[in-house]
Amino acid sequence: MIKFDREKHVYQSQEFEELIKDTIRFFNGTPVHTLPPPEKFYGTGVYAIYYIGKFPQYKKIYEQNRMSFNHPVYIGKAVPTGWRQARSIHAIGEKTFELHTRLKEHSTSISHASNIENKDFRCRFMILENDASSMIGTVEAALIRFYTPLWNSSIDGFGNHDPGKGRYNQAKSDWDVLHPGRPWAEKCQGVHSTGVSVKENIATYFTKFKE
Amino acid sequence: MIKFDREKHVYQSQEFEELIKDTIRFFNGTPVHTLPPPEKFYGTGVYAIYYIGKFPQYKKIYEQNRMSFNHPVYIGKAVPTGWRQARSIHAIGEKTFELHTRLKEHSTSISHASNIENKDFRCRFMILENDASSMIGTVEAALIRFYTPLWNSSIDGFGNHDPGKGRYNQAKSDWDVLHPGRPWAEKCQGVHSTGVSVKENIATYFTKFKE
Repeated sequence: MIKFDREKHVYQSQEFEELIKDTIRFFNGTPVHTLPPPEKFYGTGVYAIYYIGKFPQYKKIYEQNRMSFNHPVYIGKAVPTGWRQARSIHAIGEKTFELHTRLKEHSTSISHASNIENKDFRCRFMILENDASSMIGTVEAALIRFYTPLWNSSIDGFGNHDPGKGRYNQAKSDWDVLHPGRPWAEKCQGVHSTGVSVKENIATYFTKFKE
Repeated sequence: MIKFDREKHVYQSQEFEELIKDTIRFFNGTPVHTLPPPEKFYGTGVYAIYYIGKFPQYKKIYEQNRMSFNHPVYIGKAVPTGWRQARSIHAIGEKTFELHTRLKEHSTSISHASNIENKDFRCRFMILENDASSMIGTVEAALIRFYTPLWNSSIDGFGNHDPGKGRYNQAKSDWDVLHPGRPWAEKCQGVHSTGVSVKENIATYFTKFKE
């Protein structure tokens, strides 16, 4: 029996940290577009959504993004279909549109919400394809850790999908409490957070917010 | 408005491919242990589970692992708690045990199954901590893509958890059809696959299996 030694299992890599910084810098150098972007495009990858409007609870975000796109409100990823199950057997050259589709879904969510508007959102995205597609989760995680966007942390639910028939016994998310209007969210019957508690979460978030 | 140019969004990195190969090689050089490992240890990361027993359907796996640990039956990850939501605010030096806990859960699943035994399993794992923890998803994905383990691809459900009260209307997984015994899986009421179809899936898997 092999003697157990934890240190033999710990991976260390200086190169890795450098590589992550390199990808984040690349990301922050990609062009900013409307939400959804003006053209359909193929590919998978990572994206950020920025808010530049004046929803009262998001005043600090507005201030932070007054002169440039500094602080995303949401970061997400679009992975190849079947990726988790190693079933990603796209034919060579086959084009799939996951990233664009995801951004369109987000745009639809926002257009349903009664108190925010699509015209006040922008997005940035980075396409990771072929072998680099396995880096998608890492880049997303690194960006979320770096920015801690509001809709990834204190206000949950923006990225949710319609739970579907037979599952509307769950509660609508905090995001849907704050931005009511998505038809499927309004069908959810569970006991959701109050508007007051959601606003408290936002206030707490901004007390920790790096200026 | 910025003109749309897909190429401006595509990330290319030769270094990345090298780094992934480096991590996979490190992984394959870590010591192999019993399942669960003989000591409790802290940390998050990626693991592989190997089968060295003689379950009839897994004869090819047995043959492949006859002289060394060549082909995992399952690959998984254990990420820091709250990682997805950027809520990973462990105090510096705080020790959490996600990887060990996950391997113990798998060991429990196997001990409940009526036709496979813990003594016929081994595991290998790689701890990714601090900044390297954001690499966990990438390394797991790369390993799954490289090995396409049976329980990650053709036989689904090994990594599932008890769906919990009020959700036993779903079907038990193909893994639970093949290896019956987990108490919560036996409570599931939905229409599951037949043993015949599951065995066909295994046969199909092995026809694609690289010798």
